[in-house]
Amino acid sequence: MAISSAIESLINALKALPGVGPKNAQRMAFHLMERNREGAKEIADALNHALDKVTSCKRCNSFSESELCDICSSNKRDQSLLCVVETPADLNAIEQVGAYQGVYFVLMGKLSPLEGIGPDKLGFKRLGELVANNDITEVVIATNITPEGETTADYTQQLLAPYDIKITRLARGVPVGGELEYMDQRTLAAAFKDRRPAS
Amino acid sequence: MAISSAIESLINALKALPGVGPKNAQRMAFHLMERNREGAKEIADALNHALDKVTSCKRCNSFSESELCDICSSNKRDQSLLCVVETPADLNAIEQVGAYQGVYFVLMGKLSPLEGIGPDKLGFKRLGELVANNDITEVVIATNITPEGETTADYTQQLLAPYDIKITRLARGVPVGGELEYMDQRTLAAAFKDRRPAS
Repeated sequence: MAISSAIESLINALKALPGVGPKNAQRMAFHLMERNREGAKEIADALNHALDKVTSCKRCNSFSESELCDICSSNKRDQSLLCVVETPADLNAIEQVGAYQGVYFVLMGKLSPLEGIGPDKLGFKRLGELVANNDITEVVIATNITPEGETTADYTQQLLAPYDIKITRLARGVPVGGELEYMDQRTLAAAFKDRRPAS
Repeated sequence: MAISSAIESLINALKALPGVGPKNAQRMAFHLMERNREGAKEIADALNHALDKVTSCKRCNSFSESELCDICSSNKRDQSLLCVVETPADLNAIEQVGAYQGVYFVLMGKLSPLEGIGPDKLGFKRLGELVANNDITEVVIATNITPEGETTADYTQQLLAPYDIKITRLARGVPVGGELEYMDQRTLAAAFKDRRPAS
């Protein structure tokens, strides 16, 4: 064997990272061992620290280091407005805009029959309980505008239909800075269908 | 802050991986925490194990878990034939072919004035000592056929010129399966210059 077994194990372990294949894992392992041992130590420590600390928020299902996450426990957020997203990354993207003042529920995925992800694998049961047991007036469904995201949105909408709440979905349309000439047909069709009054 | 500080730290640490930017680091951190905590634990353990075990081979400068690596300590390898490569990844690629039976010296990089990597940052001093103090008859310079690799090869060649040994370099030419129509001009020129007798 040409490489040390410790490096072989490291290469194998790094393949658990999303989008990292054997060649890339080898490149990462060699780089860390050869040029950045401090960085390697930091990654190992950060992983162990995160594994130790990070759990789910009991209310919104997102990552949290305490029973309730910072957003759910904040008295500055409107607890009657709930935004349903697929992942913490989506939550993060919305937070970075800074325009939304309600709270969230994170499904931790999207419906995907091809990958065997049905409603029972996502947080729908807890979402139903959350809406049933709290004073929520509006749910904004903010799943991705992809086939799987739209299916997930449809399912969420049906799930929440029995409750007496307003249910909304993100506007679909031409993105800001978008040029009609280069827009795909479905986006243009959605932008026409959902056209808004000129104000 | 929308995400837990443990995850923020993990995202920052993961940016030490080569080719991984902020977005990709976030994706990796979320994936590991959400879907693959076992994989995360394995990466942390493998990193710590490698940091603990992996050092340099005293002879060839490659990664090793003992004073001499498996290749340098093998009695099946021809110790008089030395192949100079840039990195352990290159060594590995040559080993996988299985056609080379000599030993190696790994420079651990290439000359790169733009990145501030001069001869003193690579293993040239140890390479000189190795050739001076051992019974080596041929050195095959197997750096990459890139501008930096060629510069590194030229430097190696000059360094070893005073010694009474045969110095060779890898053949440059059209790769096996290559079509002339799509070959770049410098490769074609090299293939013509180094043309071999038809046998």
